[in-house]
Amino acid sequence: MAPKAPKFEIKTPKGTRDWSGADMVLREKIFNTITNVFKRHGGVTIDTPVFELKEILAGKYGEDSKLIYDLADQGGELCSLRYDLTVPFARFLAMDKNIQQIKRYHIAKVYRRDQPAVKKGRMREFYQCDFDIAGVYDPMIPDAEIIRIINEVFDGLGLKGKFTIKLNSRKILDGIFQVCGVPDESIRPISSAVDKLDKMPWADVRKEMVEEKGLAPEVADKIGKYVVLKGKRDLLEQLQKDEELAANPSMQQGFEDMDLLFTYLDAFDVTHSVSFDLSLARGLDYYTGVIYEVVTEGSAPKVSAAEAADKPKKKKGKSGDADEDRSDDPTVGIGSIAAGGRYDNLVGMFSGKTQVPCVGISFGIDRIFSILSATQSNKERKNEVDVFVMAMGGGKDFTGLLKERSQVCTRLWDAGIKAEMLYKVKPKFQNQFKAAETNGVPFALILGEDELAQGKVKLKEMGLPADHPLKEGELISLENLAEEVQVRLDQKKKLDAIVEQAGGLRVVGGIKGEDVKVATETTQPQADAPAQE
Amino acid sequence: MAPKAPKFEIKTPKGTRDWSGADMVLREKIFNTITNVFKRHGGVTIDTPVFELKEILAGKYGEDSKLIYDLADQGGELCSLRYDLTVPFARFLAMDKNIQQIKRYHIAKVYRRDQPAVKKGRMREFYQCDFDIAGVYDPMIPDAEIIRIINEVFDGLGLKGKFTIKLNSRKILDGIFQVCGVPDESIRPISSAVDKLDKMPWADVRKEMVEEKGLAPEVADKIGKYVVLKGKRDLLEQLQKDEELAANPSMQQGFEDMDLLFTYLDAFDVTHSVSFDLSLARGLDYYTGVIYEVVTEGSAPKVSAAEAADKPKKKKGKSGDADEDRSDDPTVGIGSIAAGGRYDNLVGMFSGKTQVPCVGISFGIDRIFSILSATQSNKERKNEVDVFVMAMGGGKDFTGLLKERSQVCTRLWDAGIKAEMLYKVKPKFQNQFKAAETNGVPFALILGEDELAQGKVKLKEMGLPADHPLKEGELISLENLAEEVQVRLDQKKKLDAIVEQAGGLRVVGGIKGEDVKVATETTQPQADAPAQE
Repeated sequence: MAPKAPKFEIKTPKGTRDWSGADMVLREKIFNTITNVFKRHGGVTIDTPVFELKEILAGKYGEDSKLIYDLADQGGELCSLRYDLTVPFARFLAMDKNIQQIKRYHIAKVYRRDQPAVKKGRMREFYQCDFDIAGVYDPMIPDAEIIRIINEVFDGLGLKGKFTIKLNSRKILDGIFQVCGVPDESIRPISSAVDKLDKMPWADVRKEMVEEKGLAPEVADKIGKYVVLKGKRDLLEQLQKDEELAANPSMQQGFEDMDLLFTYLDAFDVTHSVSFDLSLARGLDYYTGVIYEVVTEGSAPKVSAAEAADKPKKKKGKSGDADEDRSDDPTVGIGSIAAGGRYDNLVGMFSGKTQVPCVGISFGIDRIFSILSATQSNKERKNEVDVFVMAMGGGKDFTGLLKERSQVCTRLWDAGIKAEMLYKVKPKFQNQFKAAETNGVPFALILGEDELAQGKVKLKEMGLPADHPLKEGELISLENLAEEVQVRLDQKKKLDAIVEQAGGLRVVGGIKGEDVKVATETTQPQADAPAQE
Repeated sequence: MAPKAPKFEIKTPKGTRDWSGADMVLREKIFNTITNVFKRHGGVTIDTPVFELKEILAGKYGEDSKLIYDLADQGGELCSLRYDLTVPFARFLAMDKNIQQIKRYHIAKVYRRDQPAVKKGRMREFYQCDFDIAGVYDPMIPDAEIIRIINEVFDGLGLKGKFTIKLNSRKILDGIFQVCGVPDESIRPISSAVDKLDKMPWADVRKEMVEEKGLAPEVADKIGKYVVLKGKRDLLEQLQKDEELAANPSMQQGFEDMDLLFTYLDAFDVTHSVSFDLSLARGLDYYTGVIYEVVTEGSAPKVSAAEAADKPKKKKGKSGDADEDRSDDPTVGIGSIAAGGRYDNLVGMFSGKTQVPCVGISFGIDRIFSILSATQSNKERKNEVDVFVMAMGGGKDFTGLLKERSQVCTRLWDAGIKAEMLYKVKPKFQNQFKAAETNGVPFALILGEDELAQGKVKLKEMGLPADHPLKEGELISLENLAEEVQVRLDQKKKLDAIVEQAGGLRVVGGIKGEDVKVATETTQPQADAPAQE
């Protein structure tokens, strides 16, 4: 009763993909690193349904609402797949009045019927990874902790010194616009134009302001003097000395916020990573205070001047939304790798009366994955097995020792040790060895009839150099099997940790602590990787 | 610009729910335990899209196909939300011809437009947790390892000795049906009737066979003699002595399989947990070899005879599918908590030529959650913070020490220690203490101006009894802050592990290893929990 082949193409839906193998291992590693940071700061996770009532999402995403996936009307409620994790979080807070304060993280897939660009990681189904602090607290303390968290995440991912957190405040930005003479109703559109300064020269942004958005040229020019400014507390002090700005109420609030923020960033030891950048505006309308965006060298890949000049000009990006930097133009790069800010009014859009102010950050997992998979070796292990249990022999009378292998595995499993064997009654030795090698299993436990008769098995560390004293392995007692193995595993883990800390080194030998040689080794070519700043 | 309250009810869609708080913590704990076991056996995880092409799911679920969620036709491909993880896995294997062997696990949500029964954990969106071994291997070794894995999972979840793995083989079952004289075309329907023996008495099952399915009464009676049989290898030997059975080819294959299986189960040390049960049939059509189903006392809750007699008889369950035991009848209980088997032909339904034989198990997370949440204390911690950093004081001149608290938190975070403080400039001491207590944070680090001046802070273990020598905490040096804290955390973790192993005990004191008192304590009432067998 062999089934017939189906008549349609077997594939995943457009803009979606399967994850497996080394990609999956790397992605899980990224999730683990990020989750550990979130937990270190007292984060708790929540889980919301993958679809929401259609009404919940309606009116939250402006013209991008057309990208929302709807479920078919099969009777009952009309539902849509979630578009992000922020609106479901706001809905969650609005529903549960008991939760007035929470530090929540949520790592989950979201859905957008956008044009996919698979190579850049722009998919229709993709992961978001959000941390938000909700609740009424003394000003700017949670905002500063979010920046501390951003630092710990990227340091933890091995990008220490390779990222910059651009920082601004909606209050300061709006103050500048007001002082420069932007009419109130034009503040958000003008803000959107400013947000494009990381992709367009000022001349183009000015043109958009004046020609498309009807701003007076002298107002645009006045804005132009401010939005090029970057710095840290020095920039804040410079702005504070500007009497015209200092007289604006929104600006005063912004000054107060940023002053506190810089104080707290010092205490959290992360001032070095931020750039107070007046060109940062962020697209989404709902931000009400501090905003930030994390960039790395990979955010905008290097293009030679000649190449850039050679390129025909692309049409301008659409109005500033969170996705605009996911353009198909390859010079744009992968864009920001995390972004967020304070949004104090979103929960109120559901609850009406009860406001729960929030500040948060969303990490772009797919972009982070692209950067890390380009810089990391492909030698990631595909599984986590520590010991491959093998039978030695091969003669006519070779029994395969399946029972003994099973029992040895069982004893390792009982002790919590990750172990594997071939599902074969009489496996060839080289096949067992190859299986261990292919998966990068660090230890082979080799069973032979003679050794077993003496109550012993051979433990061999894989990949030792030919001249290593333990190259041929060592006999260990069956009686204390799990303990003997665990000692070697622990030693190797310690060594590996030391080596990883040293960076660019690889242990060339030693399953015994006393017996270590550490050799420098050139790391894999990193031509495409962002250079250390 | 305060937003207006929306006019519709703020809720999650029917049959879905949010997860947060203690429920989420317990669910994560279950996932971690299960994932650790999967990794211990060399499992790797894959991730597939939440929706598949409609055609992929078509024709796989029989009459339950009506429960599939479709996406709206918004142009482009027609898609449906996945109904289980098995069909996407088979599709994945059929697409990637390079993968001929894999031990994969997948923990993800699936979707069924069923009538929800929230109290029993029957939801429209729910988690499945699957481990499958795909590939051609020597017979029955992977099948036995699956049973080993089931044991490790339930032992790991604290259900050691409280579950039974019912075991049968489609080859043996079909052999019995053939020998008894069931016509070939009736074998699956009769098999479905047998599958109901865990919920219906034999008389009712016989009636269904004879009256609904047209089986000759003498054939039914012959079946009845077999399907009541239970045992281990003894039952296999008993069947092997039956000359009529021994002459049947399907039976011979089944005997060979079960003989090997019992040998391997002995080697894996798990024979004690299985019951070779001829009444186990499993609903799904695609099983081709060994089948299993895990039950616990909670699978069918105790009902007094009076209660049972009092209850009007409910209509019979629908034909045997994987969900039938999720009936609304409260006497049915939560049903099996894991189920699976060998399915050698499913991948071929997509690939046509290439067959990849598979054997696997699916753990019913929601049912396991129900059991564990009924037996476990509600004192699960809501976050994982180990140290709550507080400022002591309260007089008029109290500064709140926000800078110092931030710096201390920073040093702990730098060392990877989970720490938290109140986001308040001048917090009241009792509010800080209460926050730590509410979340069950084990240690308080208390900053006072006098102590800081001496380069010291106070570390206090929370919840110590009044007469404990360290009740008031101990002063530790700021200089080695992180190390000093880490030592105490490690000691407490070790103690907690010892106590957990001892079971039903609780440490009443001691943040120093030398200083431990362990007291027996009555555990929380367990009236509703299944008793130890």
